[in-house]
Amino acid sequence: MATRCCSFNIIGELGNARAGVLHLPHGDVPTPAFMPVGTRGTVRGLTSGDLVTVGASMVLSNTYHLWVRPGHELIRDLGGLHRFMAWDGPILTDSGGYQVFSMRHRNKVTEEGVRFRSPEDGIYRMLTPEVSVEIQEALGVDIAMAFDECIEWPADEVRTQKSTARTTRWLHRCLQARRHADTTALFGIVQGGMYPDQRAAHAEELSALDLDGYAVGGLSVGEGQHEMMEMVSVSTQILPKHKVRYLMGVGHPKDIVQAVLRGVDLFDCVLPSRAGRHGTTYTSVGRINMKSAIHKADTSPLDPSCDCEACTKYTRAYLRHLTKCDELLGKRLLTLHNMTFYQRLMSDLRDAISRSDGDALTRIQQRAEISSAVQKTR
Amino acid sequence: MATRCCSFNIIGELGNARAGVLHLPHGDVPTPAFMPVGTRGTVRGLTSGDLVTVGASMVLSNTYHLWVRPGHELIRDLGGLHRFMAWDGPILTDSGGYQVFSMRHRNKVTEEGVRFRSPEDGIYRMLTPEVSVEIQEALGVDIAMAFDECIEWPADEVRTQKSTARTTRWLHRCLQARRHADTTALFGIVQGGMYPDQRAAHAEELSALDLDGYAVGGLSVGEGQHEMMEMVSVSTQILPKHKVRYLMGVGHPKDIVQAVLRGVDLFDCVLPSRAGRHGTTYTSVGRINMKSAIHKADTSPLDPSCDCEACTKYTRAYLRHLTKCDELLGKRLLTLHNMTFYQRLMSDLRDAISRSDGDALTRIQQRAEISSAVQKTR
Repeated sequence: MATRCCSFNIIGELGNARAGVLHLPHGDVPTPAFMPVGTRGTVRGLTSGDLVTVGASMVLSNTYHLWVRPGHELIRDLGGLHRFMAWDGPILTDSGGYQVFSMRHRNKVTEEGVRFRSPEDGIYRMLTPEVSVEIQEALGVDIAMAFDECIEWPADEVRTQKSTARTTRWLHRCLQARRHADTTALFGIVQGGMYPDQRAAHAEELSALDLDGYAVGGLSVGEGQHEMMEMVSVSTQILPKHKVRYLMGVGHPKDIVQAVLRGVDLFDCVLPSRAGRHGTTYTSVGRINMKSAIHKADTSPLDPSCDCEACTKYTRAYLRHLTKCDELLGKRLLTLHNMTFYQRLMSDLRDAISRSDGDALTRIQQRAEISSAVQKTR
Repeated sequence: MATRCCSFNIIGELGNARAGVLHLPHGDVPTPAFMPVGTRGTVRGLTSGDLVTVGASMVLSNTYHLWVRPGHELIRDLGGLHRFMAWDGPILTDSGGYQVFSMRHRNKVTEEGVRFRSPEDGIYRMLTPEVSVEIQEALGVDIAMAFDECIEWPADEVRTQKSTARTTRWLHRCLQARRHADTTALFGIVQGGMYPDQRAAHAEELSALDLDGYAVGGLSVGEGQHEMMEMVSVSTQILPKHKVRYLMGVGHPKDIVQAVLRGVDLFDCVLPSRAGRHGTTYTSVGRINMKSAIHKADTSPLDPSCDCEACTKYTRAYLRHLTKCDELLGKRLLTLHNMTFYQRLMSDLRDAISRSDGDALTRIQQRAEISSAVQKTR
């Protein structure tokens, strides 16, 4: 067994919710944690210093995108992804699977892996468990994700079972392919579609492998919140308690809180950054479309309870003007705000769980519901 | 005579070059100074805090753009442009003339002014000297520019003479239209095309009016540097010595230095910000296209003699990657660098002139030539 480079300590519990610390080669991550998404080695519009300012301790980057541009070998030769993007903290990469499976009509899926043609350069490539691990280890990230099959939604029971079995076989190939287990952890991904018994069986199977950490994948694909949370619960009830749990690609503030209540520790989602670039903000008074004319002459701050640069220095009227004009500064400021909002949500969750303060947790839950819903304007 | 809200002190001279301080309602501007261009009330991608960081003391914004969106009356009602864009320092606005004259086939020019149809909203508007002054005063800027006729280049002698005469008549209407001379200065603009005698005559005519400050306009329109500098010299030799002189829309570092040597104090240009957004940088080793493959694996800083965030935290390889991917962070970092570079040039010029250090001035001139030329790569 290779040396572990990843460990997880629980420092507080409240029901099924846990507060903890994830220890990784590039530092400690207090959990529950939200990872901003830095697709091409950059969280759009933010410097690595900005990420520290908003309170992020770990970022996610995308294997597929860095493979195509500028290439994982170049990044390895330049000293790894941390140095490349000037981010000293922990980094997790996805496996690239999500991107290549979403290239419909451009890919061919076999037991070996996925052959596809990159839209960026028209080049045919083959992504396999071995290639995915090789790329992620070359990037030198703290956590690599296993290459799994991302099936379409909805998918029937037989199709789901076959796909999950392939994901397990691919996981074993990923484990075999590792060369740097001492510096890059590998997380497995629980699949099983929307079938509770399949989710449970897969969680059991992966638990037996004593992996560095566990993700719940294949969710937030179109199913409702109720169904998503059922799949989360069924997985976290089985996964080993002292390993970190990561719900991939989730989500709205209210989804994050619900998943934390079910024992999830780690999240990532493009929502705060993508929404910010397109003029949508998450605030203590609701989700707000900054293009709306109601903000035209509004000199109040975007979110009076936020201390970010957008909220303390600028008015809604100005932010609306920038958004209407599609100005770069608008994208930057709204992204900064949304990131700050998400990181404060996580910090509040950590505090409430650490203090075993159920009332505080209930208030956070209520606030998350409000911030996820469109702001009411009489 | 209305109270002056603008005064200029010369604190050092070296040949025709001057170092001084321009006193304005929102603060002092050490000259020679370069104003970053904040077209829509924002220097693209930079916060007002960033402008302080790069060393800018005054910004330029565009009357036409703010008139159309979000409207000068709204900005006035919200407390003026300074408050709107959260910039406490001095602001100068152009007259809007440049934009409406450049709308070929969409405008009609008469003695009254320019009638045109805005591409942004399809609305017909009429810009006159009176309207231009009204808008600029409503914005509450420190310096308003007189509404002048921007003629095509090249233009023959008779056409130029007629146009310059109209500019003078429009200047008188601007002076008549002022309501807030106590808070917004008004600068006249020397025209006269590429005809030295017309330039001289117009400079004489405007000097007699004892205006708050003087601009040299209608240059950097396609003529060469030699011709441009001839027009600058002929104007500055006549303009009153103790009034500030502003060369509009210039330019490359080498053009700025040449104009400073001829007695110009104030500059603005979209070059550093626009070039930065498109991947071109001004450095101590030349003008660099960051998209070039030669930077692919270059771990050296963009400019080793620069202390900006782009140069101290990131490598050329990473900046090239961001630029190739058209990432927001690339635009921000290269803009920050170019702005820092321009402001350092101005600061160096001020120091050399204040100390009457001719050798230093010669070295700055040589460096500006290098930074304006494409970097040599063996």
